[in-house]
Amino acid sequence: MGAAIREEPRPADDIGAALHALVAELYPICRSITGDGIRRSLAILGRHLPLVLHEVPTGTKVFDWTVPREWRIRDAFIEAADGTRVVDFRAHNLHVVNYSVGVDAVLPLRELRRHIHTLPAQPDLIPYRTAYYDERWGFCMAHRALEALPDSTYRVRIDAEHVDGSLTYGECVLRGETEDEVLLSAHACHPSLANDNCSGMAVLAMLGARMAHRRRRFTYRFVFAPGTIGAITWLARNQAQVRRIRHGLIVAGVGDAGAPTYKRSQRGTAPIDRIMAHVLRHQAPEASLRDFSPYGYDERQYCSPGFDLPVGLLQRSPFGEFPEYHTSADNLDFVQPQQLAGALGLIETAIEVIEQDRQLRNTAPFCEPQLGRRGLYGALGGDADAAKRNLAMLWLLNQSDGTRSLLDIAERADMPFATMAATASVLEREGLLVPA
Amino acid sequence: MGAAIREEPRPADDIGAALHALVAELYPICRSITGDGIRRSLAILGRHLPLVLHEVPTGTKVFDWTVPREWRIRDAFIEAADGTRVVDFRAHNLHVVNYSVGVDAVLPLRELRRHIHTLPAQPDLIPYRTAYYDERWGFCMAHRALEALPDSTYRVRIDAEHVDGSLTYGECVLRGETEDEVLLSAHACHPSLANDNCSGMAVLAMLGARMAHRRRRFTYRFVFAPGTIGAITWLARNQAQVRRIRHGLIVAGVGDAGAPTYKRSQRGTAPIDRIMAHVLRHQAPEASLRDFSPYGYDERQYCSPGFDLPVGLLQRSPFGEFPEYHTSADNLDFVQPQQLAGALGLIETAIEVIEQDRQLRNTAPFCEPQLGRRGLYGALGGDADAAKRNLAMLWLLNQSDGTRSLLDIAERADMPFATMAATASVLEREGLLVPA
Amino acid sequence: MGAAIREEPRPADDIGAALHALVAELYPICRSITGDGIRRSLAILGRHLPLVLHEVPTGTKVFDWTVPREWRIRDAFIEAADGTRVVDFRAHNLHVVNYSVGVDAVLPLRELRRHIHTLPAQPDLIPYRTAYYDERWGFCMAHRALEALPDSTYRVRIDAEHVDGSLTYGECVLRGETEDEVLLSAHACHPSLANDNCSGMAVLAMLGARMAHRRRRFTYRFVFAPGTIGAITWLARNQAQVRRIRHGLIVAGVGDAGAPTYKRSQRGTAPIDRIMAHVLRHQAPEASLRDFSPYGYDERQYCSPGFDLPVGLLQRSPFGEFPEYHTSADNLDFVQPQQLAGALGLIETAIEVIEQDRQLRNTAPFCEPQLGRRGLYGALGGDADAAKRNLAMLWLLNQSDGTRSLLDIAERADMPFATMAATASVLEREGLLVPA
Repeated sequence: MGAAIREEPRPADDIGAALHALVAELYPICRSITGDGIRRSLAILGRHLPLVLHEVPTGTKVFDWTVPREWRIRDAFIEAADGTRVVDFRAHNLHVVNYSVGVDAVLPLRELRRHIHTLPAQPDLIPYRTAYYDERWGFCMAHRALEALPDSTYRVRIDAEHVDGSLTYGECVLRGETEDEVLLSAHACHPSLANDNCSGMAVLAMLGARMAHRRRRFTYRFVFAPGTIGAITWLARNQAQVRRIRHGLIVAGVGDAGAPTYKRSQRGTAPIDRIMAHVLRHQAPEASLRDFSPYGYDERQYCSPGFDLPVGLLQRSPFGEFPEYHTSADNLDFVQPQQLAGALGLIETAIEVIEQDRQLRNTAPFCEPQLGRRGLYGALGGDADAAKRNLAMLWLLNQSDGTRSLLDIAERADMPFATMAATASVLEREGLLVPA
Repeated sequence: MGAAIREEPRPADDIGAALHALVAELYPICRSITGDGIRRSLAILGRHLPLVLHEVPTGTKVFDWTVPREWRIRDAFIEAADGTRVVDFRAHNLHVVNYSVGVDAVLPLRELRRHIHTLPAQPDLIPYRTAYYDERWGFCMAHRALEALPDSTYRVRIDAEHVDGSLTYGECVLRGETEDEVLLSAHACHPSLANDNCSGMAVLAMLGARMAHRRRRFTYRFVFAPGTIGAITWLARNQAQVRRIRHGLIVAGVGDAGAPTYKRSQRGTAPIDRIMAHVLRHQAPEASLRDFSPYGYDERQYCSPGFDLPVGLLQRSPFGEFPEYHTSADNLDFVQPQQLAGALGLIETAIEVIEQDRQLRNTAPFCEPQLGRRGLYGALGGDADAAKRNLAMLWLLNQSDGTRSLLDIAERADMPFATMAATASVLEREGLLVPA
Repeated sequence: MGAAIREEPRPADDIGAALHALVAELYPICRSITGDGIRRSLAILGRHLPLVLHEVPTGTKVFDWTVPREWRIRDAFIEAADGTRVVDFRAHNLHVVNYSVGVDAVLPLRELRRHIHTLPAQPDLIPYRTAYYDERWGFCMAHRALEALPDSTYRVRIDAEHVDGSLTYGECVLRGETEDEVLLSAHACHPSLANDNCSGMAVLAMLGARMAHRRRRFTYRFVFAPGTIGAITWLARNQAQVRRIRHGLIVAGVGDAGAPTYKRSQRGTAPIDRIMAHVLRHQAPEASLRDFSPYGYDERQYCSPGFDLPVGLLQRSPFGEFPEYHTSADNLDFVQPQQLAGALGLIETAIEVIEQDRQLRNTAPFCEPQLGRRGLYGALGGDADAAKRNLAMLWLLNQSDGTRSLLDIAERADMPFATMAATASVLEREGLLVPA
């Protein structure tokens, strides 16, 4: 009867706690698009799924881009005249503009302010800022703290350097019965932001762990890479074989309290777009669907016109639309165990659809077969409720002319795919349905 | 100018009364899927349209099914110790589970209860139950009456037997100018249920009577058969020629006070689906349309994947969704003369579309022809109302490029088909439109 | 970088005043489908754009029609017994039914009334009526004035004649880089009705004046002709070359206070239909769109099945749906300078789309090109607002696979075409986009 089908996500408690613990382990690390932060993070993920780390040397051309130098940061602070650290990288790694060049100077506050980023409308939060592909330095801090600084002279120190090294990404391939691939991808470059994207990394690592031991029709490829440059590097190194990708999902920001949001691939009608819409409709009716736009996460690269891959994005609250986004409020409290588990459940349900969807053919296509004779049908024909119990069977027999898939039928019947797949197995066992 | 076109159904009084009288004649008969009840019913219908009765022997294989034995019932009752009949088949034939095996026993009430069906939520109504394809016996009664029975011992007797015989169905073929067929079908197996389906039998019989004397482009085939097994039997015996069916309509439950409901064929976009939607939009705007589902009447067989015929279902209140459904409350009071006449009117309007629809070609396609010169157009060009009177003509001339049918044009113009067909005849007479 | 693109219509004051002055110059002339009224009107338009007048002799066959005789009217009145003119053509040319035959008679009021048209529901307005293609005479007057006439005998005189002559239309062709044509057409036959269609004539004349001096990819053909017979005549004389028309717009009734209304071509999905919908959505969101119907202005001829040209209609309040329509209240007060200028602005924006729309190809289609390196992108990747500024660029790069036009992309991105076209020019300059 094939792999079992779940209609409901598993009880979220255990999985949620494990996912949150993994987020908590990843959270404190100061990641960037290159460097040891991402290596340490991938090492942690590698304890859950069989991850291979790839190192791509600084200077390597990847399409229109060049792999940048590694950023090595040891310390950063702003020090008052009395030696007190008024801003300290060790307290929060968002305090330093990510990828800043090194600096060691004494500056009056007025001049220092030009290098300081705050959020006046959210005066207690530290913003997240980056200086990729640009030789700059800067600090981020709470606006209230900046306002409280006496007008004085400060020592600023960023003990960082950019050195030739490599860009690191992690890849895990779980071979299936076919070479058709499912791509699962999470950006791994953001520093201490729990939802964005420790949540995505944790959910995909746990998913890989769980999938490693099951029967797989498709080959599953997990990619953890820095945003933009990492996806570009991965695509440049895998250009020939990405055509094997039949379905793909980017996972990012899936731990907050918001309802799921699925953003369609550029194609808009790729199978993954239908599958996610179906799964969300039945498993998370509060979810929302969005059309593709070329602003966002690595769908920008996967869906660029030279590739145009069938890759969508699963998140909860859409990036950029919630107040904690890219601030120090995206912390471990912002991410909830049951939300992480719920996201994992949605992806696993989608994978069940991917694995189980198939076209069947009714072997008794002329009129209905006599289900009652086979014990498949309530005998009291006048019972007004009998129809409901048998409806999935009737839909499958009616629609299985060899051209329609189980998902097609589930959508037309407006029933969950899992119900349809389980019922199809019963009818296959009876010989009433066979592969088309 | 061809057959006259009616925009409105004829005055309903006479026809409604005749239809209700026919329902009343059919109502008391104890029909089942086989046996004399259906034969007597078909004999009554045969007084209205030239019906041929077909007898298919018990044991005949029809696809996955076998024609069952005939059910012969003479009497059935539950008798109290004092000889009083507390349940009597002669009072209402719903009291016996249809197709019950015979029984003659004395049972304590506790044991008897396992064979009694009631409707606790509708305690005064007798439910309709069947035991087809299963060796069982049972009674149906009002829940209140059951509750009032003293805890005693009762004699139960069903004087019935199942014998080799035949399944009976009636067929009437009205040949037309072409072999293209229109199928009109009603199930004829339900016992004393006035709406379900004495109403459908009566409306189709009267329709056949009225159509027998008119010019027919299509061949019309009326089928009155027991539900499910009858349709299966008919399809098995007509498998080669059902491909001639261009349009089909099942008629059932068309006498109650509800608005018309049309259920689309499996194809969903068959011509009959468009035609019925058009007719209902203009003639019964209170009607509702439903998509196909594989639960219902004999559309389950006609629309099975091996046939997939363009057959829809016309009913009023949808089966299973009104409280009187499959109960003793579906009686002669539940069925109204004007509702029966209205249903007949809808079908006749649909048949006008089927008969009259055709593709025409404008013989003066470059600019508008000068209608005024032909007396076809109001001469005062500045009259703001002139447009309305001429709009049907303008639509026909504009759209008749040989690819669009009158129905296409009526739908685009959002005008009744009858208006378009009558106007087309005027323009054909003028030579401005010719067959495409 | 090509022609500049305007997102907003130019300040309307100057243009609006000039347009209203031109309407005022055209307004008093007694036009008809033939005769000197239309010739004098075309002469006025010819001072603005290089108009060629075509004379087509009376009796010329044009498809199903014949060019009618010229109508020459010198005077018309109804005179009371005391010699007072109670109705005087010189006071308002709507007083005479347009194209009336001559008459000189003395009639009792009772008999005269059969030749008098009024609007009882708008008792102070003179209606507009015509007697084309019919030998009749008549007067139009305010209902209140008619009611005030003493029951007496009146002299009626229409000093008019129908003579062999010609039908006149004006045409202006502005050659472009290609032979693909844009047709712009206004009916020019209505007498003193300011909105219908002095407004359309004035807007198209001014448009022609402005377009004469700009670079043109398309050839623009302006046609000013009497309604119906003029369009038919023009089509009959240009039958071979109308296939060059890629886009067309009829302009009529664009000076009143109502929001723009665009009526689609018969095709419904012609490029002009998309273009006008796009322009109105962004530039006049209060506008409404209507589907084609075969009643209206000269779209009846352009969209007849033998031609089926991609020609839509731009108006403001839809003809026949406002109380001033075809009455003396459609006067110079009814037409507003800023509304005329607004209509011109909409057409010019549509022409920008026609001129600038093109398919481009991203030269760096694998992943995104590095915009930051080219100074095209905000460097602070963490800035939540950066996306908006770059979104048009990202859409263009993502969508420009050579199959999609700038309009396609603007519609998908839901941004104004002008924004997309301006941004495309930037990317073309950088070599990131090239012609497909």
